[in-house]
Amino acid sequence: MKTVGYAAHSSDAEMVPYHFERRALRANDVAIEILYSGICHSDLHTVNGDWGPQPYPLVPGHEIVGRVLEVGPDVTKYKVGDHVGVGCMVDSCQACDQCDHGEEQYCRHGMTGTYGSPDRISGEITQGGYSKHIVVREEFVLRVPDGLDLSRAAPILCAGITTYSPLRTWNIGKGSRVGVIGLGGLGHMAVKLAVAMGAEVTVLSRSTKKEDEAKAIGAKGILASTDAEAMAKAKASMDLIIDTVPVKHDVTPYAPLLDVDGTLVIVGQVGPMSGFMSVPMIMGRRRVAGSLIGGIKETQEVLDFCAEHNIHPICEIIRPDQVNDAYEVMTKGDIAHRYVMDMSSLSVED
Amino acid sequence: MKTVGYAAHSSDAEMVPYHFERRALRANDVAIEILYSGICHSDLHTVNGDWGPQPYPLVPGHEIVGRVLEVGPDVTKYKVGDHVGVGCMVDSCQACDQCDHGEEQYCRHGMTGTYGSPDRISGEITQGGYSKHIVVREEFVLRVPDGLDLSRAAPILCAGITTYSPLRTWNIGKGSRVGVIGLGGLGHMAVKLAVAMGAEVTVLSRSTKKEDEAKAIGAKGILASTDAEAMAKAKASMDLIIDTVPVKHDVTPYAPLLDVDGTLVIVGQVGPMSGFMSVPMIMGRRRVAGSLIGGIKETQEVLDFCAEHNIHPICEIIRPDQVNDAYEVMTKGDIAHRYVMDMSSLSVED
Repeated sequence: MKTVGYAAHSSDAEMVPYHFERRALRANDVAIEILYSGICHSDLHTVNGDWGPQPYPLVPGHEIVGRVLEVGPDVTKYKVGDHVGVGCMVDSCQACDQCDHGEEQYCRHGMTGTYGSPDRISGEITQGGYSKHIVVREEFVLRVPDGLDLSRAAPILCAGITTYSPLRTWNIGKGSRVGVIGLGGLGHMAVKLAVAMGAEVTVLSRSTKKEDEAKAIGAKGILASTDAEAMAKAKASMDLIIDTVPVKHDVTPYAPLLDVDGTLVIVGQVGPMSGFMSVPMIMGRRRVAGSLIGGIKETQEVLDFCAEHNIHPICEIIRPDQVNDAYEVMTKGDIAHRYVMDMSSLSVED
Repeated sequence: MKTVGYAAHSSDAEMVPYHFERRALRANDVAIEILYSGICHSDLHTVNGDWGPQPYPLVPGHEIVGRVLEVGPDVTKYKVGDHVGVGCMVDSCQACDQCDHGEEQYCRHGMTGTYGSPDRISGEITQGGYSKHIVVREEFVLRVPDGLDLSRAAPILCAGITTYSPLRTWNIGKGSRVGVIGLGGLGHMAVKLAVAMGAEVTVLSRSTKKEDEAKAIGAKGILASTDAEAMAKAKASMDLIIDTVPVKHDVTPYAPLLDVDGTLVIVGQVGPMSGFMSVPMIMGRRRVAGSLIGGIKETQEVLDFCAEHNIHPICEIIRPDQVNDAYEVMTKGDIAHRYVMDMSSLSVED
């Protein structure tokens, strides 16, 4: 199938239109016309080569919402016209213990990323959602429930599941005390989801300048990490902190905010961390953990949860030809929303 | 009560004999004649000022085994002649939630350390176990069960409980896969305790030179952190790693050894850690935690567990006047045993 997308051709080049082929449908494949495609901070890191060399040309994008165009003969869950989503993975071994219990992101043989990974059958490099079409095996296609606004659902496939999964893993519910570091794409979803689960949520940020935004989505307020007195007063007051900041920073100042046995989960920062101290960990049996997106079953769960609780990411809808401008804004600073591309202006004929 | 001990008078001086007074018995106090006193690596750090300025003269020691000399009128649990122990704490608020559920080490108002802490009533600085006598409130006195060899029981009060507590917190039992980094005072106790709980235990060390010692205490062997091939092969093979190394080091090379949801618990390294990387944490929802000794109830539990399973620390018995030599050996390198001072040669009359 002929398609078109926006690709990076090197680590220092802008994204440009790129015509390429999607594979012919296998028996268990679903072909999707992409309607909306979210832009994740990890797309930037990847195309910039921050996480190692990439197989250019590379079409990023792993927050995908679309409509089923065609299905292979063995597909049973989806039919033409269904609204569906694709997140960060398009395949895994489907045979190991992790895949068996629905945590394909920790597949023993490695998940296949939505872009930049070799396909498990053909070896061809996968290309992501900044494109008009995608072909994905049925098991990695999600159903977008009717209750969700299609134009604002895409970021749930990454920003949503990445924050939902640790909230579930650490049993957040009514009365839990949750801190969220950073109020960007992931952070604002963490706040909305934790609030919907019944938690008392505090946003942790360098300043209180986003306090209105934080309160508008249900947080009780912002605790400024630069306010030493407020930080000292908040000691041992949180059960879970979700750290969504995608750039290098020291988590040590936040650790004392955790109660005994509390956990700080890193979902944004990938790479070497600076200044990590064991003292606050030891003094309260505190924990620092990492968490990677979530499994397919849990991704369906967060989509359904968002529909049920009328939770949508705050999105700014742009055209695909504005992607480079969006990257520039995201590189410069933190934004409390997610860019989502409306793919309708993109045509294979152009 | 007149007593004598070995005290440091500054951060760079040797330990010398020191005559001082123990407080007159309060109603709930137990006076103890100290028979054996263990030497912990944290004693060295403390007297050297590595953890901040100290109130010299300071008598260290928090692995104490002795005999009850006298009890206050309200004491009900102990009588003259009983064999008892004292560990790292001698008091706490006894009123907060942490004290209520037996985790006095995380007391909301701070535990009172066995040495170098202000007494909660008089404000006098506590002095530790490198001495002939100690006076401690009943609630912080442990019973040494008959099954234990008194001369080798003292290190259970710190090295034992410090490793036993995380093994219990993380539910180690039959079939658990446990790694122990370092085979010193804490490490060898971690191995013995985990083996007795039914775990399969691997020692992690820079080389395999201590392999015989590791196997002799029940480990299946040593995995050398310098053997890249063996480390790669052992990926995702452990549920819990107890890191007992008391000096600065990077835990990142060990993180991939943890299975999904596995935890590395730091019990030895206090201070800034070098090179900590989030990647292996995120890629397997792995965790790094700290753990501080254990509560009084759990300390009694580990004493009873050791008696039941005939577990004794490997001890080298020395005289108190050899303490400076022991410090020198401990400063130079790792030793797979614990120095314990036999206090019988120490006399108040000298």
